[in-house]
Amino acid sequence: MSSPKAVVLVSGGLDSATVLAIAQEQKFACYAMSFDYGQRHRAELQAAAEISRLLGAVEHKLVTIDLGGMGGSALTDPSIAVPEASTETIPVTYVPARNTVFLAFALGWAEVLGAQDIFIGINAVDYSGYPDCRPAFVEAFEHLANLATRAGLEGQQFRIQAPLIHLSKAEIIREGIRLGIDYSPTVSCYQADETGRACGVCDSCRFRKQGFQEAGVPDPTRYY
Amino acid sequence: MSSPKAVVLVSGGLDSATVLAIAQEQKFACYAMSFDYGQRHRAELQAAAEISRLLGAVEHKLVTIDLGGMGGSALTDPSIAVPEASTETIPVTYVPARNTVFLAFALGWAEVLGAQDIFIGINAVDYSGYPDCRPAFVEAFEHLANLATRAGLEGQQFRIQAPLIHLSKAEIIREGIRLGIDYSPTVSCYQADETGRACGVCDSCRFRKQGFQEAGVPDPTRYY
Repeated sequence: MSSPKAVVLVSGGLDSATVLAIAQEQKFACYAMSFDYGQRHRAELQAAAEISRLLGAVEHKLVTIDLGGMGGSALTDPSIAVPEASTETIPVTYVPARNTVFLAFALGWAEVLGAQDIFIGINAVDYSGYPDCRPAFVEAFEHLANLATRAGLEGQQFRIQAPLIHLSKAEIIREGIRLGIDYSPTVSCYQADETGRACGVCDSCRFRKQGFQEAGVPDPTRYY
Repeated sequence: MSSPKAVVLVSGGLDSATVLAIAQEQKFACYAMSFDYGQRHRAELQAAAEISRLLGAVEHKLVTIDLGGMGGSALTDPSIAVPEASTETIPVTYVPARNTVFLAFALGWAEVLGAQDIFIGINAVDYSGYPDCRPAFVEAFEHLANLATRAGLEGQQFRIQAPLIHLSKAEIIREGIRLGIDYSPTVSCYQADETGRACGVCDSCRFRKQGFQEAGVPDPTRYY
């Protein structure tokens, strides 16, 4: 019997690389999906392609969408500065409806592939300010997925798998190390340069740096 | 007080033109949104722009997405023929997760605009074979919208408005005529030519033609 297929959202960052390794360990045939949505940190996209290849994804699909045309986030709108440390409850790096858009595309691809599992590296601990990183969001999307599709109508149960949702950054890193991931090609920085070097001061860099420290693992990140 | 804003999904077809007129009648400031997703019937997109202008939308945003790259539908995959009359329960013209993707983008834009109403011209009567045209799908998306967004978290209630969901094509047309719509620029055909002329034989053409007949309204469609 061939392996069941799964769609895995891969951003090029540390979290989704870990999720891809988890899905691979569970013997899924993994179809990696990334989005070019006008994000500032475009080095992520090259990292996403490299990680998908290194971790053995069957295919890596890059979907181009113009989410940036809507504005409203520091990650896509050049007129909003990336903060060095967030003070708001919901950071300005929140992109409106981003995970809903990503999961909608993943759902469409899963249906075409005949996959019933969709993996996403969202995390409710470090990013508690993002509404679309919470367990209730994941459950609501899973419910929607089974109503929204031909496959769901015909009895297939989609599963939205968010294996990192309750883990701290240090726990995620330890899990990745156990799975043999080399994190050096991953890019987490919100304002990485074109070679993937990180700023070291944005929220994402700070969570990552602290995670390596707490996990007791050498930080392979290249900073500028 | 200025009018509340609404995002209105406008495809260029008859149904969504009617929805836009309904939203305008309800005094919303309407932000029309269309998608270039590799559909065969691209004349729809020109129709969408024209209808948005004619009916007085504040803005018309065209979002380009490569849904077609996923395959799986006669509307986006040139290797699948458009049927003259569907025999399956769910037609091959079903595009996997299409309305989920469209509503996800609409939600993102609504959040940026500060709109809490999203109008969509889905219809459970003629298109009963499409899973994402049913009331349960609309309810599930509305539930998701309030969990997925900063605005929802802060107490805003999004409403997914599907005013045509229980109407027959003839009822939709009568409503549109009451609202003064000129349906001649609309394009419903799955395989319209580049000038917007319709085939007259696909499912969408047949429903439309029959709708005008039943409504007792002259059919303004140009056929090739």
